[in-house]
Amino acid sequence: MIKQFYRKPLFLVFILFMTSTVKAQKNQMTEKKIDSILTLLTLEEKVAMCHAQSKFSTPGVARLGIPEVWMSDGPHGVRAEINWDNWGYAEWTNDSITAFPALTCLASTFNPKLAKEYGFSIGEEARYRKKDVLLGPGVNMYRTPLNGRNFEYMGEDPYLASKLVVPYVKGVQENGVATCVKHFVLNNQEHLRDKINVEVSDRALYEIYLPAFKAAVKEGNTWAIMGAYNKFRGKYTTHNPILHKILKTDWGFDGVVISDWSSAHSTKEAALYGLDMEMGTGTDGLGTTTLNHYSNYYLATPFLESIKKGEIEESVVDDKVRRILRLMFRTNMSANRSLGRMNNVEHHNVARNVATEGIVLLKNKDNFFPIEDEKGLTIAVIGENAIRSMTAGGGSSELKPKFEISPLEGLKARYKNAKIVHAMGFASGPSVYDEVLPSPYDADSLKIEAIKVAKKADIVLFFGGLNKSHLQDCEGADRKQFELPFGQDELLDEITIVNKNVGVVLLTGNAIEMSWLDKINGLIQGWYLGSMAGAALADVISGDVNPSGKLPFSFPAKLKDNAAHHFGELSYPGDGINQYYKEDILVGYRWHDTKNIKPLFAFGEGMSYTSFELSGFKLNKKIYSKGEQVVISGVVSNTGNTNGAEVIQVYIGKPKSKVKRALKELKGFKKIVLKKSISQSVEISINVNDLAFYDENISDWNLEKGNYIAYIGNASNNISKTIKFEVE
Amino acid sequence: MIKQFYRKPLFLVFILFMTSTVKAQKNQMTEKKIDSILTLLTLEEKVAMCHAQSKFSTPGVARLGIPEVWMSDGPHGVRAEINWDNWGYAEWTNDSITAFPALTCLASTFNPKLAKEYGFSIGEEARYRKKDVLLGPGVNMYRTPLNGRNFEYMGEDPYLASKLVVPYVKGVQENGVATCVKHFVLNNQEHLRDKINVEVSDRALYEIYLPAFKAAVKEGNTWAIMGAYNKFRGKYTTHNPILHKILKTDWGFDGVVISDWSSAHSTKEAALYGLDMEMGTGTDGLGTTTLNHYSNYYLATPFLESIKKGEIEESVVDDKVRRILRLMFRTNMSANRSLGRMNNVEHHNVARNVATEGIVLLKNKDNFFPIEDEKGLTIAVIGENAIRSMTAGGGSSELKPKFEISPLEGLKARYKNAKIVHAMGFASGPSVYDEVLPSPYDADSLKIEAIKVAKKADIVLFFGGLNKSHLQDCEGADRKQFELPFGQDELLDEITIVNKNVGVVLLTGNAIEMSWLDKINGLIQGWYLGSMAGAALADVISGDVNPSGKLPFSFPAKLKDNAAHHFGELSYPGDGINQYYKEDILVGYRWHDTKNIKPLFAFGEGMSYTSFELSGFKLNKKIYSKGEQVVISGVVSNTGNTNGAEVIQVYIGKPKSKVKRALKELKGFKKIVLKKSISQSVEISINVNDLAFYDENISDWNLEKGNYIAYIGNASNNISKTIKFEVE
Repeated sequence: MIKQFYRKPLFLVFILFMTSTVKAQKNQMTEKKIDSILTLLTLEEKVAMCHAQSKFSTPGVARLGIPEVWMSDGPHGVRAEINWDNWGYAEWTNDSITAFPALTCLASTFNPKLAKEYGFSIGEEARYRKKDVLLGPGVNMYRTPLNGRNFEYMGEDPYLASKLVVPYVKGVQENGVATCVKHFVLNNQEHLRDKINVEVSDRALYEIYLPAFKAAVKEGNTWAIMGAYNKFRGKYTTHNPILHKILKTDWGFDGVVISDWSSAHSTKEAALYGLDMEMGTGTDGLGTTTLNHYSNYYLATPFLESIKKGEIEESVVDDKVRRILRLMFRTNMSANRSLGRMNNVEHHNVARNVATEGIVLLKNKDNFFPIEDEKGLTIAVIGENAIRSMTAGGGSSELKPKFEISPLEGLKARYKNAKIVHAMGFASGPSVYDEVLPSPYDADSLKIEAIKVAKKADIVLFFGGLNKSHLQDCEGADRKQFELPFGQDELLDEITIVNKNVGVVLLTGNAIEMSWLDKINGLIQGWYLGSMAGAALADVISGDVNPSGKLPFSFPAKLKDNAAHHFGELSYPGDGINQYYKEDILVGYRWHDTKNIKPLFAFGEGMSYTSFELSGFKLNKKIYSKGEQVVISGVVSNTGNTNGAEVIQVYIGKPKSKVKRALKELKGFKKIVLKKSISQSVEISINVNDLAFYDENISDWNLEKGNYIAYIGNASNNISKTIKFEVE
Repeated sequence: MIKQFYRKPLFLVFILFMTSTVKAQKNQMTEKKIDSILTLLTLEEKVAMCHAQSKFSTPGVARLGIPEVWMSDGPHGVRAEINWDNWGYAEWTNDSITAFPALTCLASTFNPKLAKEYGFSIGEEARYRKKDVLLGPGVNMYRTPLNGRNFEYMGEDPYLASKLVVPYVKGVQENGVATCVKHFVLNNQEHLRDKINVEVSDRALYEIYLPAFKAAVKEGNTWAIMGAYNKFRGKYTTHNPILHKILKTDWGFDGVVISDWSSAHSTKEAALYGLDMEMGTGTDGLGTTTLNHYSNYYLATPFLESIKKGEIEESVVDDKVRRILRLMFRTNMSANRSLGRMNNVEHHNVARNVATEGIVLLKNKDNFFPIEDEKGLTIAVIGENAIRSMTAGGGSSELKPKFEISPLEGLKARYKNAKIVHAMGFASGPSVYDEVLPSPYDADSLKIEAIKVAKKADIVLFFGGLNKSHLQDCEGADRKQFELPFGQDELLDEITIVNKNVGVVLLTGNAIEMSWLDKINGLIQGWYLGSMAGAALADVISGDVNPSGKLPFSFPAKLKDNAAHHFGELSYPGDGINQYYKEDILVGYRWHDTKNIKPLFAFGEGMSYTSFELSGFKLNKKIYSKGEQVVISGVVSNTGNTNGAEVIQVYIGKPKSKVKRALKELKGFKKIVLKKSISQSVEISINVNDLAFYDENISDWNLEKGNYIAYIGNASNNISKTIKFEVE
């Protein structure tokens, strides 16, 4: 027995050693192969590999059997096939996929294990669709609730986004499909995205806007990164010195920087400032002779000419091609790839699990939710969002799902005894794919009908929010208003007059203003949930699943309460040329906390059908040195009558800092699934080094000594315990 | 030393044993995997796999990661991308390929090694283009020179076609790409191909029309076979009892029978008579509700319904899906596939070598060829075929080559001293792709200009023949005339009046009538030669390469001399419903030989710039028993002053047979490359069993006893030696 005891760990060590050795050898072999391939390529072939040949592919070198690189849009699912050289859909019938919930929903799960499953599943679908690069996920930080593209990102907290992007990336890449984490960096609004210049402090850059990318690179080992449209300090981010300095040098990124589509603006900058592969939009139907043709891309003929003239060294293109070949050896030149799968039950289950775990219960007066399926009960489902496709539209993340269960369908399938009636109530106008909605609409008659239906019902479930149309949650432009569009506020006002038992389900990717909040009994933040949307919503509404989602961003009571908007137009949306991130590091809850501006709903907030209690939380030490782990431990108890899950959140603050600090910052969390009446101990570790601030004086991270406070709770605004500790 | 001597063969035996054992185990494993996959599939999924989802793909089972099957037209190159659901080209820019010479040219090489290189190269291109099945090669027998599709086939002799199709198939399939040998069977004319019923004797079927397919299956192990459009004995060949009886049972074919596009006509027959996968044409732009939609294919919903109703057993679809899965394990589910290559120098060289070895020199009065590149010499290149694309058009074999060197370009590149002038002479009208030709043409002015140019030149090289337009060498219809079209005969008559030094290069896939043959000095049969056409023609015309091609079919002096035409309209083209192959086994040279009807040019004929002598040919025995090898050996000498190659051909005849016999039939050949003044011994073996005839009385092969004659020569009409032997 003793012998065995000793041998086991030794054997394990040996295996681990062998694994890492084999991997290192394999990498060395790959690098040698790349070296030898490079010697075979002509300059023209190398340059050709650095830019698109079609909307979503770059050329290989056919004579040598070097494959093309095929990409697809889609952090939430693999986009339908697009024509070779225009943005029309190719009208294939084999490209209907599983639509997964939007990344805001994934963020709300606070569940890295689900992020892994999400990534692996979407990676399998990308692989089945023969894609080599998936253009996602997006980890731009949520700065303003007007950003049209927030729904594609993971919220306002760099730590939360980091913890979720890493397993997502790993999951996708296990299939031999690269992630292309986007948009690097500071593309935090759509308004004037293709020219706005962002001025932000180094501190905010390093502490708020870069960490999720850094995690994707250093922990997730993403094989590609997408540049952004906007400028940073006067230079386009797609070819910006920080690509070399931070991404490729400091972080050691050895993958490919891909431009956003037509985000490149200069051959010299693209060549020298870190862009490896230029993609574009503007070739639509313009044939082969226009300036926009692929061969006229900045990294095409002009790049070739510059090298030939000696203005740019050939080693510059060699580095780019080396990265592209490395990507190929990881993807389409790897013999180890699976074949992928698509539309399988497992993917549907992942989509449904992410959806149910991401749905956030925000108000539940008199236990409005869950709603039991009782005979004689009439539930009025009101609102266009109950039937509208939320996978159509939204920009590049638009999907063509094999199916999409609408909320109404989901409820009808779940509620067999209660009577479900539906009234549109409002209409936003047809979306691209919508064939459901008759038109034209008479807003008044829709409203009148809805009120009539609401009046007669026992319960009203209002499905509203935003949608994926232009100026809503959609790429290319920001929202123009903070309140609900299409007359929903007025409609809700009137409904709540005729029926006192109203619950609201918001399908949005953004915070909104809620003038009617006091008049309703229940509120669910339902995001955009993909193929299984209706089933997941019915799961939570019916109580089949106990909600455990937590908000990944703050809902300010009014727009001005948001940090970016507090500082006026120069901060958001800018003056048309520049914008200044005047809130600096105080983004989201950091702002609300520090400035004591109470949000309508806070970061990390989310209710359950059961109750949880945190007790006995303590730290392992009182004083910590550099590199040590702060271990927070305690007990979580499900004190209610329902099984459920709770997210224990640990924030750290540094009072009396020599620099400006947020009151507290999320530094650890853990989701605990607990059966009713059961308690469980929980332990969360935080490396002391992660408490450093980015010190602009030394251009490096600085771990400040002195007293810190750990805030332990289940929401940024619901701290059960604070514990002081010291860093020496 | 002795030890080593013994060990070597033992080791080799061991290796061979292991290899075959490993292969058998692998096959067993695959069959087990297929069994287990079958249990996972729903009936709907199985039926779906049996029919198209688009013009060139069939669905996989996405939820299980079973891939789609992607096919491409093209025995001569991988066709350009076609739209999902209509026949328009997808306008991609990555689908320009190497165009290889037409299969008639490959057949003329009499060189199985080149066929292997051709197959491997085109297989690599198919693989690079991500195709799983290459729809080719074609081995329908050359029965009439009017057949619009002869250029895609390998001539009139089943033995020659067999020897070339096997290495072609093996070469393609080494890339993990299936060949789909077509069109099974008796699709020997395009006229009324989609309804004509062929009545032919069992003997002709087995001895003439099936052998090349049998070789492709039993020796080449082709993974797919394509059904044909026509009927045989009243039943469509795409679902005909012979598919089960002959192909799948007698020959043990374990691959997939794919319909020609829209060649299926009955669910029951398709289900029960051996069709595995139904493809179609008629869905063009008709949307999803028409009768032609994929779901309404015979092997789609009607097949599903028949199984559900119990009219067809589920085991029927299981067998088809088993075959399809087997194809997948050999192609897109195999991890061992290479990545393929495209447009590489090696492929261009193969294309050029096949072309130069396939070009046939037919007349060379006063050593008209080769033409030296002399200063002061004016060569008038006359004819549209000198500049017309011969890869555009022709039907499904149409190609989009990366480049295509026209004869004129090829000559201009080769002849640096002589002056090359070109005149169109005639014009056939624009083809689909042709942007070269101005239009409209005035035929008279073209003729006048050509005669003027011819008159002034030292040498006239007339490039004429057919082209790939409708009613020429083109799928879908047969030629309407045996003589040259577009006024070429008249033009040649007039040119030969003004210039006595005229050579003709015919670019055709068919024999033509040559009223002007006596008036010209040189004649080259130049086929359709693909990307390297002009370079290869210049190689031969200049003498850089000594021609060694041999005709793979007879050129009758007049159409009536051809066996199919001898018997009148019931034989060809039929009465609109039936046609009767009255010539029976006497196809091509078998007819000319036996009936003593001298062809203009004979099967196997082809000249060289040097001379060869055959001497000392003898057999190893005088009397042979069943199963023994008839070994023919002798010496070939290059008696001229030029390096060259000669094809030694051995025909066997059975005088005084109890059944009708051809005078002689090709049973062996060998191509010998010989430097000038060098002799070499050659040995050709023929298994006695291969001299059997198909005995309709016993429905089996019958090896007749008695005297046989071996005819040894370098053409069917140039026999140097005959040797008698006996079979006992």
